[in-house]
Amino acid sequence: MTKPLALGAGAEFDRLRAVFATLGARAGALGDDCALVRLGKTTLAASIDASLEGVHFRTEWLSYYEIGWRATAGALSDLAADAARPIGVLVSLGIPGTERRGDTAAGIMEGVGAAVQSVGGKVLGGDLIRSDRYLVDVCVLGTVERPVERRGARAGDLIWVTGRLGASARALAEFQAGREPEPALRARFARPEPRIRAGRWLARRGARAMIDVSDGLAADAGHLAAASRVRIDIDLERIPSHPGIAPREAAGSGEEYELLVALPASFGERAARAFSRACGGLPLTCIGRCVRGAAEVRLLERGSRVAPVAGYDHFLRS
Amino acid sequence: MTKPLALGAGAEFDRLRAVFATLGARAGALGDDCALVRLGKTTLAASIDASLEGVHFRTEWLSYYEIGWRATAGALSDLAADAARPIGVLVSLGIPGTERRGDTAAGIMEGVGAAVQSVGGKVLGGDLIRSDRYLVDVCVLGTVERPVERRGARAGDLIWVTGRLGASARALAEFQAGREPEPALRARFARPEPRIRAGRWLARRGARAMIDVSDGLAADAGHLAAASRVRIDIDLERIPSHPGIAPREAAGSGEEYELLVALPASFGERAARAFSRACGGLPLTCIGRCVRGAAEVRLLERGSRVAPVAGYDHFLRS
Repeated sequence: MTKPLALGAGAEFDRLRAVFATLGARAGALGDDCALVRLGKTTLAASIDASLEGVHFRTEWLSYYEIGWRATAGALSDLAADAARPIGVLVSLGIPGTERRGDTAAGIMEGVGAAVQSVGGKVLGGDLIRSDRYLVDVCVLGTVERPVERRGARAGDLIWVTGRLGASARALAEFQAGREPEPALRARFARPEPRIRAGRWLARRGARAMIDVSDGLAADAGHLAAASRVRIDIDLERIPSHPGIAPREAAGSGEEYELLVALPASFGERAARAFSRACGGLPLTCIGRCVRGAAEVRLLERGSRVAPVAGYDHFLRS
Repeated sequence: MTKPLALGAGAEFDRLRAVFATLGARAGALGDDCALVRLGKTTLAASIDASLEGVHFRTEWLSYYEIGWRATAGALSDLAADAARPIGVLVSLGIPGTERRGDTAAGIMEGVGAAVQSVGGKVLGGDLIRSDRYLVDVCVLGTVERPVERRGARAGDLIWVTGRLGASARALAEFQAGREPEPALRARFARPEPRIRAGRWLARRGARAMIDVSDGLAADAGHLAAASRVRIDIDLERIPSHPGIAPREAAGSGEEYELLVALPASFGERAARAFSRACGGLPLTCIGRCVRGAAEVRLLERGSRVAPVAGYDHFLRS
């Protein structure tokens, strides 16, 4: 994800704050999933997202096609969160200097191409470098008429989330334990779907603020709360989780690429069913609300406050 | 540079052809320095360019600021070659996990910011990852009313080049031999200037085809010849070289980020002087011509054909 200025807590974010602070007035609008640039009558949305072998994935876990798909879907998810329509991607590909180089590069690029084609975009350009580890750095470009940013949520809005959470972290845990995850879990990790159609549908229906679930539901709700300056209360028992995964585990699972969205209270279950019909059966679940107060997230279990959930660790432990 | 479909010779390009061939119909206009996308009344120009420690630079040679500047200037050079006006850049930064991480990331980003600010752009967004080696992957975005592509040169056009060539390869050779290059050479390597103003001036004055000198003058002339389907004859003795560097060495020096441009024969020395005045004294030198014939480059010395010059090796030998 393109890192915002209005960041949540954590050492990773502290480093990023220091980096972006040095840019001072040179920096553009570093405030959302995507950079947004007004161009004539449209707004350009752009984001960059790097995936590195050993940090974000291992070649033992994924096919080269899946490595390309996953990196691209993750980057496209930032367009979804701003309700943008994809134009295409530019990709820097780092490939180790082995004899299979040509094959693996082609495999990765097929996955990149398929992911971007699945949402109507194209591979616009790229660069190929020799590197010690596989690297797939994807810059996504899109256009949007009315971007849905992180900062628009207001007290009284309800918080909804698409899909079911938890499979990504569980699949990762299985991989790290040396086991092959069951197919449904594995697919969520290897072939996440960027929620482009969902993001655009929600924007048309009045979404006030939106973010993709990349750092984990609780952490991303924190980013939304910080940018919108509202408190967000989440009912743990309402979090839609993958079968066999507890809501608490689901709330900490990152790289889910589902959408977390604030909608006016007038948006109800009937509208959520219309969403599902329009988006291939994807669930949309109300899990909480925006409340006037300090910009923070409170997790509630049957109405009582419970301990916060840690943010998702994007870095594999080597 | 964003790799084109109309590529010159070499194993590197063979691999790229295979990669992009797999994209088939999914690929966009992979035919120039930049991807060009029509957006309402303007055209978006975009390119991505990765710089990796040990492959494109060494930390012993450059300051962190210079690492950021050089990577960014090299990427911006693709906008210059298409006569685009920069909007800004998105940067993926890979930083080794050391205690100095915050400092070095900030240093690199200061260089990135200064380079993009020098041509009126902004840092729009970024991603930060932990990697074994420093990585600076820069995606540049710009707009252009009338892009100057590689394919527009016609028989009868004259070939011109900006600046003086050869310092980049010589500085690299000095670094690789363990010596500090003299300041003028070092500056050309560490702080190249993207020729944005020059590119836009040349476009207004009728440039038919343009490319930046990234693979070496001779090799880049080959890309231009291939895309335009003309033969290009270059007079070796007319190549403007850095003091103390022979034209033949200058013709093989890459990462120069000067512009190689085909202009109608009506563009003469008087216009070249006007160019220099408008571009801070930057020389513009006529070095050859486009001729009907097979798409190739011929190097001539006092009118006689001489052996071709090898392309520039972007990869450091480790």
